[in-house]
Amino acid sequence: MAYRETEKMRQRKAEARKKIIECTWECVSEGGFRSARITRIAGLAGVATGTIYRHFESREDLFAEIFRLATQREVDKVAEALAVDGSAVERLDNALRQFARRALKGPMKAWALIAEPVDPKVEEERLVYRKAYANLFEQAIRSGITEGCIPDQDARLTSTCLVGAISESLVGPLSPTQTETPPGHDNNEDELVDTIVCFCLRGLTGTRS
Amino acid sequence: MAYRETEKMRQRKAEARKKIIECTWECVSEGGFRSARITRIAGLAGVATGTIYRHFESREDLFAEIFRLATQREVDKVAEALAVDGSAVERLDNALRQFARRALKGPMKAWALIAEPVDPKVEEERLVYRKAYANLFEQAIRSGITEGCIPDQDARLTSTCLVGAISESLVGPLSPTQTETPPGHDNNEDELVDTIVCFCLRGLTGTRS
Repeated sequence: MAYRETEKMRQRKAEARKKIIECTWECVSEGGFRSARITRIAGLAGVATGTIYRHFESREDLFAEIFRLATQREVDKVAEALAVDGSAVERLDNALRQFARRALKGPMKAWALIAEPVDPKVEEERLVYRKAYANLFEQAIRSGITEGCIPDQDARLTSTCLVGAISESLVGPLSPTQTETPPGHDNNEDELVDTIVCFCLRGLTGTRS
Repeated sequence: MAYRETEKMRQRKAEARKKIIECTWECVSEGGFRSARITRIAGLAGVATGTIYRHFESREDLFAEIFRLATQREVDKVAEALAVDGSAVERLDNALRQFARRALKGPMKAWALIAEPVDPKVEEERLVYRKAYANLFEQAIRSGITEGCIPDQDARLTSTCLVGAISESLVGPLSPTQTETPPGHDNNEDELVDTIVCFCLRGLTGTRS
């Protein structure tokens, strides 16, 4: 009997945790980490604010967890996009395009994950996950060097160039504060993605695509 | 008499502020923002911790000020390096090399400015200053397009690719936690700089350099 009670409690606890995470992600998706206030999350999740702190030591810990879960999904998508048939350059093209398109489709989410000034705990996770992306790109670059479609280079270093180029170039277009449309910049999404991917592939291969 | 008193006080205040800024930068240069504790800064500056808070509302405000001052110096160096004689590609080559070399020469400073997880206030400044670098690169790319040494492209967007590629690729080599020397990676600084600059210029021009 005592054991069953514990199981039930454990389950309830896990459900509450899941609900808190879902509601936090809902806030972050709509208005960035900034808008994810504990009282608002508690309201959405239908729990007391104290309950949130029983599951997460602090708002920062909750944010770091949200960041990890959401970014891992994106890392997995990049891994999938790299796993298609084709040459290494084609696979990288596919993955970079996919990353940029997903970001532009959910600009607030992407802004929150890529660039929103948050908290050192989230920043630390950003460094970790940027390395995760770089590791995936590095493998593909190495394959490309072996296949002969990418010239010999320090794949570890150029993989980080890719991560930097694609994230930084999306920060502008994604920024919720970026309201100005500069002259000659028609915000055409396809053109935007083409320009970024072209820069990245040229950087790797030295060939105009 | 009253006026003179005020002038003297103003001067003393300005000197104390300068000293606090110098000592904070000393700490940051040695061990990143993490090591710049208020008690330590106060000790170095020979002031009470309360004095620091009379000059800066918070540790975060002090850090943001330090960040701005130090990063503006780097932005100025990039502007200088872009102002040399030569084609736009040569000037960009010079500026990117200079940026990377200065970063590798003062790795802890550069790590603190580029990537150390600090505080949202510093993160916000990072976004502002990355835009400042991008603006400089954008002008040079536009000149290159006019000169004909850089193919037509969205200079605003590719300037951010440059900023991302160079900062992100330096984060690894600069990281104080990065102790491993991966296989085939001999930490040769010149090679490192060459690889990064080559990626960036290829990205812009599509030509192997």
